[in-house]
Amino acid sequence: MEKLLVFGHKSPDTDSIASSIAMAFLQTKLGKTAVPYRLGNVSKETEFALDYFKVGAPELLEKLDEGSSVILVDHNEPAQSADGVEKSNIKMVVDHHRISGFNTSDPLYYYAEPVGCTSTILYKLFKSHSIDIPSYIAGLMLSAIISDTLLFKSPTCTTEDKVIAENLAKIAGVDIEKYGLALLKAGTDLSGFTAEELVNLDAKQVTLQDKVKAKISQVNTADIDEVMVRKPEIEAALLKEKDSLGLDLVFFLITDIINSNSQVITFGNNELVEKSYSVKVENNTAFLPGVVSRKKQVIPVLTANVD
Amino acid sequence: MEKLLVFGHKSPDTDSIASSIAMAFLQTKLGKTAVPYRLGNVSKETEFALDYFKVGAPELLEKLDEGSSVILVDHNEPAQSADGVEKSNIKMVVDHHRISGFNTSDPLYYYAEPVGCTSTILYKLFKSHSIDIPSYIAGLMLSAIISDTLLFKSPTCTTEDKVIAENLAKIAGVDIEKYGLALLKAGTDLSGFTAEELVNLDAKQVTLQDKVKAKISQVNTADIDEVMVRKPEIEAALLKEKDSLGLDLVFFLITDIINSNSQVITFGNNELVEKSYSVKVENNTAFLPGVVSRKKQVIPVLTANVD
Repeated sequence: MEKLLVFGHKSPDTDSIASSIAMAFLQTKLGKTAVPYRLGNVSKETEFALDYFKVGAPELLEKLDEGSSVILVDHNEPAQSADGVEKSNIKMVVDHHRISGFNTSDPLYYYAEPVGCTSTILYKLFKSHSIDIPSYIAGLMLSAIISDTLLFKSPTCTTEDKVIAENLAKIAGVDIEKYGLALLKAGTDLSGFTAEELVNLDAKQVTLQDKVKAKISQVNTADIDEVMVRKPEIEAALLKEKDSLGLDLVFFLITDIINSNSQVITFGNNELVEKSYSVKVENNTAFLPGVVSRKKQVIPVLTANVD
Repeated sequence: MEKLLVFGHKSPDTDSIASSIAMAFLQTKLGKTAVPYRLGNVSKETEFALDYFKVGAPELLEKLDEGSSVILVDHNEPAQSADGVEKSNIKMVVDHHRISGFNTSDPLYYYAEPVGCTSTILYKLFKSHSIDIPSYIAGLMLSAIISDTLLFKSPTCTTEDKVIAENLAKIAGVDIEKYGLALLKAGTDLSGFTAEELVNLDAKQVTLQDKVKAKISQVNTADIDEVMVRKPEIEAALLKEKDSLGLDLVFFLITDIINSNSQVITFGNNELVEKSYSVKVENNTAFLPGVVSRKKQVIPVLTANVD
């Protein structure tokens, strides 16, 4: 039988890993042969969730053979996907992002909704196929929602994310607040990462308005200063990225998940950053009050301000 | 309240009109303000369905204001959509075609499945929202499925299209075979159309592999010869289109819905046509046995053969 490869975006976050595992399980229940993969190392946050629910990490996808049948979760943009995805046979996408640069030659299944997390949409797909969600998968999907919505505090969070998270918490048998804080805290442990790793922990490459080639990275922390002491080495890593990838903008968000603010370190088109947030970039950095969501508060804002 | 404009593709077929009306009805039931529009004249087939179920045609969309909130049904490619769609706020797409050249700056609802007809997907959206489909809307949705699948004979037709069509026929209170043949026959009445109108009755502009700018048009008939007697004026109309739109290929399918074959009249990149179908184009025309579906048997085949 045709094998379906299921994967999320590069620099995978908890949603990309959890949704791959959940989607492969759903497809298997529907009689298909489906295997989850990851496109990079799992984060400490994701590792915490996998350990908690006793699930192994998906295998690393080393190479995508031409003509492979694939399911994309939590992304659609080729730059964020497996190398060679344009020559694969994309059968299905489940996602909660804007659609950009995504082209197919054949019709496909595409389920997208403007909700906080891919796992929220997946939950509804399980329901519509009347497939029960096992406890460990519910735990991973719950982790994905907590992660993407910063425990329901991000502006990307919808009522549906919250209601579905509550249902998943019941199946998984965990207390949302207690488990959620422990999960997010695990993700803020940035010790042991080199600066190169930090700027790639959760990174997305996007082209804004077909003009500005940007890489927008984010780390979560409980203390911005703790990350800012490493500013010189982070700056060097960002400049290296900018050069090697030929980027017009590198934008690194250090997000305080307790107080819901971000400090940005930025190189390249800083006029765009200043115009977008009415701030002054000084020493390659600026404070962005209330900004926590790359999807709702960074990509559309920068996009709208490209000349 | 924000008004949602709902429309299908240019040169609207029965699915584009029926799905616009059905989607606007569904959104209204869900508490939104939604109005269906059309992007061109309705065909005789669509007119037959509208008359049969006593529904008025949607208003013609004259101008799409910048920033309008829109829902696209039965298409996604900007070239097939309303002029200015790139500057609108696309809230939702329901479609059954490949995805191509479609970009948004924000997340949205996107429901696509590789089934024979948009109305088949819409039927499931009604179900998932537990909204009853009134008899006249069921009749239009049924007409769309019959039209898109050529009464279940097209290779695009899936089991789901057939099962849902049967459910819709019950709600609409019509006999599928009898009503279906009458509907398709109404669509083959090509009298009264100028050659210019003929080549635009059901036309789609697509760019194949980002290289070949093509316009692929189709008419249905019960007798290919009856259309071929007008070959000289059709050729003149096609050449005019090719020039004025700067196309690399104009491809006009005359489809025999009784015997499931097509005759094509083609100008431009005829080597691509010859290679794609292993035929010889002579006097700008070739017979394509078994070819009835632009979506399954024309666009992917031409796309795969572009060098």
